[in-house]
Amino acid sequence: MSEVYAARRARLRERGQAGGSQSALVTRPANVRYLTGAAPQDAVLLLGGGEDLLLCAGPPDERPADGRPDESLRLHILDGAPGGDPAVAAAGLAAAQGAESMAVEEHHLTVARHRALRSVAPTLRLADLGGAVEQLRVVKDEEEISCLRIGAEIADQALGELLESILVGRTERHLALELERRLVDHGADGPAFATSVATGPNAGRRGHAPTDRRVEEGDFLSVCLGAAYRGYRCEIGRTFVIGTSPADWQIELYDVVFAAQRAGREALVPGAACRDVDRAARQVLDSAGYAEHLVPLTGHGVGLEIDEDPQLAPSAMGKLDACVPVTVEPGVHLPGRGGVRIDDTLVVRPEADGGPELLTITTKELLAL
Amino acid sequence: MSEVYAARRARLRERGQAGGSQSALVTRPANVRYLTGAAPQDAVLLLGGGEDLLLCAGPPDERPADGRPDESLRLHILDGAPGGDPAVAAAGLAAAQGAESMAVEEHHLTVARHRALRSVAPTLRLADLGGAVEQLRVVKDEEEISCLRIGAEIADQALGELLESILVGRTERHLALELERRLVDHGADGPAFATSVATGPNAGRRGHAPTDRRVEEGDFLSVCLGAAYRGYRCEIGRTFVIGTSPADWQIELYDVVFAAQRAGREALVPGAACRDVDRAARQVLDSAGYAEHLVPLTGHGVGLEIDEDPQLAPSAMGKLDACVPVTVEPGVHLPGRGGVRIDDTLVVRPEADGGPELLTITTKELLAL
Repeated sequence: MSEVYAARRARLRERGQAGGSQSALVTRPANVRYLTGAAPQDAVLLLGGGEDLLLCAGPPDERPADGRPDESLRLHILDGAPGGDPAVAAAGLAAAQGAESMAVEEHHLTVARHRALRSVAPTLRLADLGGAVEQLRVVKDEEEISCLRIGAEIADQALGELLESILVGRTERHLALELERRLVDHGADGPAFATSVATGPNAGRRGHAPTDRRVEEGDFLSVCLGAAYRGYRCEIGRTFVIGTSPADWQIELYDVVFAAQRAGREALVPGAACRDVDRAARQVLDSAGYAEHLVPLTGHGVGLEIDEDPQLAPSAMGKLDACVPVTVEPGVHLPGRGGVRIDDTLVVRPEADGGPELLTITTKELLAL
Repeated sequence: MSEVYAARRARLRERGQAGGSQSALVTRPANVRYLTGAAPQDAVLLLGGGEDLLLCAGPPDERPADGRPDESLRLHILDGAPGGDPAVAAAGLAAAQGAESMAVEEHHLTVARHRALRSVAPTLRLADLGGAVEQLRVVKDEEEISCLRIGAEIADQALGELLESILVGRTERHLALELERRLVDHGADGPAFATSVATGPNAGRRGHAPTDRRVEEGDFLSVCLGAAYRGYRCEIGRTFVIGTSPADWQIELYDVVFAAQRAGREALVPGAACRDVDRAARQVLDSAGYAEHLVPLTGHGVGLEIDEDPQLAPSAMGKLDACVPVTVEPGVHLPGRGGVRIDDTLVVRPEADGGPELLTITTKELLAL
């Protein structure tokens, strides 16, 4: 595996040199992990002219949580006072090694840390690395996609088991906890994000934090969960009705959101503009009269973080590439009544390869439970 | 309740004006919550000359999660493009209202956001608010302590129930999940932090992430958990032995950590230097020959965040005040063998009031389970 990380660092170094910086400091944890295979707490990565260095505030966890650091990488453990900042140490080291400039992640470093870097290495010119690592992370290799695929299987299993149990009378909180337990049972590192279970008037709300409301007959029940597997995070969301026969308004609303979600999925082709995928889904809701209930985005990339580039939103720039995993998750929430969300994780694939690969395969029929 | 938040903002404003800034922008979520009683995602607080303003990127959650925004506070919802930064909007507003300077939280704002603020309001002089809000948060009022006390009761209950169940053969992950479920059962908002369960050679490691290792006869089992209750987070840690008779080395190690933890607790008096409390605990481990296994700190403040000021560490500055809740949590981990951690949440109280108030009351006898 260590060649993978070394190759990623080589690609980043090419960009850095193109930008004119002699060294680069990566501080955002998911970025450190992407480039080294490990991210002990507060660890930072210093990319120098030659050797790369992972700096940690203390000895890393003895147990490799989900990946071993790359052996081609040198590990430097600060043994100074507690609270010593590895980023500051890295700046000192880069200056001592004669670097004149260092690119830093200005979207992650705080003003106070940036000042500490400048103060320890006043001769070092600090430039902005920007989202260079995030950009590298957008297109996944098959190893990464395989982690997402396993995570999606785990989430499908956890959700499937929940649907077989009795739901009426149980609270949103308990259902969410049970789903999280099942994720771990099936081999997840843990939940990919806080599991959302929403019933009745809460149903269909994006990111709804579970409450003590109990499931009742006639409710919409919407669930959104995901598994983290070897650090990779996927997402699935489904909406059900509780009881034997959904009301007419429920069927109608479900059909609209389902059609919107399908339109979004079908728009996932390499080369498609992100905003066009968003528009494909949004348009369906729009023309059914739900424009005012629209969410700011209808999907987003997933990977080492649950919310990554690209965004599928009206103002999004850029196009989709093959091997980019994204969610497609339109929803409508009617205040006081509830609503519907349908959310899949898919990988963009060329039509010749069969089109978008659906990772979350739980049925999207409207089930009455 | 809203007077409480208005009074907190008044105290902060006094500090700000002393520092010479006409307005202040609070961005760190726990600080926003402390000063307003609510913290919708990405919300920021603008303290102006007169009216205070809570700016949100989108409509706040319809459901009050754990507190309603203060009515004396004006709410401003940005209806711009998704991704619009309320902090940037606040800077624009402050400049438009004629403020010449604004203090910002440089330890929280990223370099990129800071630049965006400067660019939208080039005439506004940006100063540093530093940890002013964090400092206000150190001493708690009785309402806050009461939330911590309820959280501690919940954690004690969850732990007590676990100890009555069969442990041998169960994995660290499952025990951790069960504890978290029990926290919620007893009324917690959720876990205060990721529950740590560590068995055998993992026992005694601070912040150990649960693995699939199963509990075995003869193991040390160390557990660290806490409840979040109305946003306030407490912490309890205990170590047990599995089986009928602990080994001699286990009894000996336990006694040393227990003595160290007691020494730390007894040092908690108003006016004590934080480093002296740390030294009291550390000295016991030191003189028993465990100096090299020492952790960087032996305790820390708790409140809206699980790790707040003050730090109980060798290099810590400052003294303890009454009504400051802290953990006392020395531990020793022997690589390959395991170890012991004992962790309580207490509130510093004057001797006249009975001395430190122990919130986490689960026994600290060495239980063989």
